[in-house]
Amino acid sequence: MSKVLNFNAGPAALPRSVLEQAQAELVDFNGTGMSVMELSHRSGAYDEVHVQAKEQLKSIMNIPDTHDVLFLQGGASHQFAMLPMNFLHSNKVGYYVLSGSWSEKALSEAEKIGDTKVVASSKEDTYSHIPKELALDSLPNAAYLHLTSNNTIFGTQWGNFPDVNVPLVADMSSDILSKEIDVSKFDCIYAGAQKNLGPSGVTVVIIRKDWIKEANKAIPKILQYETHAKANSLYNTPPTFSIYILSLVLNWVEAQGGIGAVQRMNEQKANLLYDCIDSSEGFYKGHASKESRSNMNVTFTLPNKELTEKFLKEAKELGMSGLNGHRSVGGCRASIYNAVPLEACEQLVEFMKIFKGKN
Amino acid sequence: MSKVLNFNAGPAALPRSVLEQAQAELVDFNGTGMSVMELSHRSGAYDEVHVQAKEQLKSIMNIPDTHDVLFLQGGASHQFAMLPMNFLHSNKVGYYVLSGSWSEKALSEAEKIGDTKVVASSKEDTYSHIPKELALDSLPNAAYLHLTSNNTIFGTQWGNFPDVNVPLVADMSSDILSKEIDVSKFDCIYAGAQKNLGPSGVTVVIIRKDWIKEANKAIPKILQYETHAKANSLYNTPPTFSIYILSLVLNWVEAQGGIGAVQRMNEQKANLLYDCIDSSEGFYKGHASKESRSNMNVTFTLPNKELTEKFLKEAKELGMSGLNGHRSVGGCRASIYNAVPLEACEQLVEFMKIFKGKN
Repeated sequence: MSKVLNFNAGPAALPRSVLEQAQAELVDFNGTGMSVMELSHRSGAYDEVHVQAKEQLKSIMNIPDTHDVLFLQGGASHQFAMLPMNFLHSNKVGYYVLSGSWSEKALSEAEKIGDTKVVASSKEDTYSHIPKELALDSLPNAAYLHLTSNNTIFGTQWGNFPDVNVPLVADMSSDILSKEIDVSKFDCIYAGAQKNLGPSGVTVVIIRKDWIKEANKAIPKILQYETHAKANSLYNTPPTFSIYILSLVLNWVEAQGGIGAVQRMNEQKANLLYDCIDSSEGFYKGHASKESRSNMNVTFTLPNKELTEKFLKEAKELGMSGLNGHRSVGGCRASIYNAVPLEACEQLVEFMKIFKGKN
Repeated sequence: MSKVLNFNAGPAALPRSVLEQAQAELVDFNGTGMSVMELSHRSGAYDEVHVQAKEQLKSIMNIPDTHDVLFLQGGASHQFAMLPMNFLHSNKVGYYVLSGSWSEKALSEAEKIGDTKVVASSKEDTYSHIPKELALDSLPNAAYLHLTSNNTIFGTQWGNFPDVNVPLVADMSSDILSKEIDVSKFDCIYAGAQKNLGPSGVTVVIIRKDWIKEANKAIPKILQYETHAKANSLYNTPPTFSIYILSLVLNWVEAQGGIGAVQRMNEQKANLLYDCIDSSEGFYKGHASKESRSNMNVTFTLPNKELTEKFLKEAKELGMSGLNGHRSVGGCRASIYNAVPLEACEQLVEFMKIFKGKN
C-alpha cells in the first residue's frame, strides 16, 4: 500500500483528477496568463467559472427554477446563525429535529435569535439513530423545520425526508451530492463544501426564491440571503478559488455518470464496510442503528480502548488517514465521501479482517 | 511584452514564486500524500500551516502580545456587520470617518445595529482626499472610531493615523502589509486577504485581547470575536487553502527583506506612476489630491471618454489587465499591490508616455 488513503471527515479527499487539473493550470488559468486566484471576480474569465458552477450544480442536483443557488462563506456554522436571523422573526417558532452535535449547535444559535422548539431528539440514545417519533402534524406558527441530513460524528443519515406543510430546511453539509434527493421538498438546503463539494471556504445555499422575500430586512445587508441572491453571489468578493475547485468537482461528478452513478458507488462502498462490521461476530460494533446508518460516515468501535488505539496506529502505518472518531465520541470512523475510491474501502476492509484475525 | 501585467484591484496579483510553490505541492503537500485542501483542519500537518501563518504575521507586522490574530471568512464586508454587532451595544455610539464607498458601506451596516455618527467626510469633494478636519477631541459615549486606511476606488490613503482616546478600528483591506504601521494604536484592524495577503476567502482580524471581553455576548456564537479567539480560529473549519497561500505570501514578504523593504518598493512604484501623471502637462489627471495619494491604487483620468477607452483597449492588447476604474467612477486605475513588480509599473509608464505622444 503506497498511496495515502484519505478517510478524513472534512476537509476530505478530493478527486485526484480535480487536483491534477488544478495543479496544471494553477499558474496560468485558461490562457489568461494568471492564476484563478489572481482573476478579478468581475472579469469575464472568472464569471465563466462562477456561472458554470452554479448552472452545473442546478443540473446535477435537478434544482428547480423555483430555487436559487448561492455561494457564501462561513460554512454550515455560519448558516446556523444566518438562517434564524433571516427567518426567525415576527414571533415565529423555529422547530428543530436533534440528531447529533451539529443539530444541537444549529439550535443553540437559533435560541439566541428567537423562539425555538425541539420536535424530536435521539440524544437519549446517544444519537445512534435518526429520531423515529416525529410529531410534525402540527407545528404552530412555524418559521421553519430544521434537520441535519447526515450526522458525521455519529454516523447516521436520514432515509426519507418528512412531508411537512411548513418551510423545510436541511443542513446537508456531509451528504449533499452523494445521492439523489428531491430538492423541491426543501425551502433551504445548505452545505459547507469540504466534504463532497470541494475545499473548505465556500458554502452552498439552495433556497426557494419566494421564501427569500419573507426574510427579515432589518438585519445587516451582508447577512441577508436577498443581498446575495440579487447579486448572483457577487455582492462582495466570493471565495473564487474554492468555487473554481467546486466547478472541477462538478465536472468530475458528471464524468462519473451523474449523481445516480455516484449514489450507487457510495452504496457499494458503505455496504462493503457494514458487511465487514456485521460479519465480525461482534469484534467491530457499529454505533448507528442499522436503519439509520450513514453511507458517508461509518462509525464503529472495537472491544476495548487498547485495541482501538492499536487499530488506529496500524491503520496509520498502512497509510490510512483520518480513521479516528470525532474527539467528542472516540472510537473509529471511516468517512467515505464521493471522492474516496472503492479501492480505499476494499483495502480498509481487508485490513479490518486481518486485524480481527490477529487480535 | 509577452507576460500579462496584473493591475487588478482585487483579487489581485500574487507573487510568482508563491504560485509556483503552491503548484509544485498541490497534489502532495509536505510529503503527506495529500493536497493541503484534503488535510483535516485538526491534523498536525495543517496545524503547522495555521500556526506559522499567525506567528509570521505577528512577527512581520510587529503585532504586540496585547493583540490576537484571527483568520475569519466573509471579507471586509462581513466585518462591516460583525464589528458593530460585537461592540455597538449598551447605547454606545459608533463614530465613522467617511473617505470612500467602503467607509459608507461600513457605516450603513452599523446603522442597522446601533447609534452611529459621521465625524468627518470628504464626500463633497468626491472623496478626492482623506478628510482634513477631524473633530476627534470629544467622541462621547464612543464604542469606537472607524476609518478606512486606503480607498481602492478613489485612490486615497491615510498618512498618519489620528491619536484618539477611544477604540480605534481600521479597515486595512487594501493596504495591510504594504507599509510599516504601529499596530498598538489600533484596537482592531481587519482586512480581506485578496489584495496584499493572499487569495479571497480569508479575512485577517487583528484585535486587542482586552477589547474582545467588552463585546456583546447575546449575539450568535459564530459572530463573536471571542469564539474565534478562544479557539485559535479553529472553532469551525477555516478556509485552509487560503490560509496556506497566505503563509506562502508571508514567506515571500520575509524574503523581500520584510515590510520595510516592501514599503520602499511600493513607494518607488507609486512615485514612478505619479511622476508620469504629474509631468504629462495635464494629459493624465490624478483623481486624488497629492497629499492623500495612495501607494496602492493610482487613479487617473484622460482628457475625454474616447481617449480613456482607447487607452484601456491598447493597454489590454499589450497584456495590461485591470486598468479600468471601478464601475462606480470610471476612468483608469492601476492597482500596484505588493506583488506587482516594479517592471510592471515601468512598462505601464512607458506605455503612458507613448500613448500621450500619439494622442
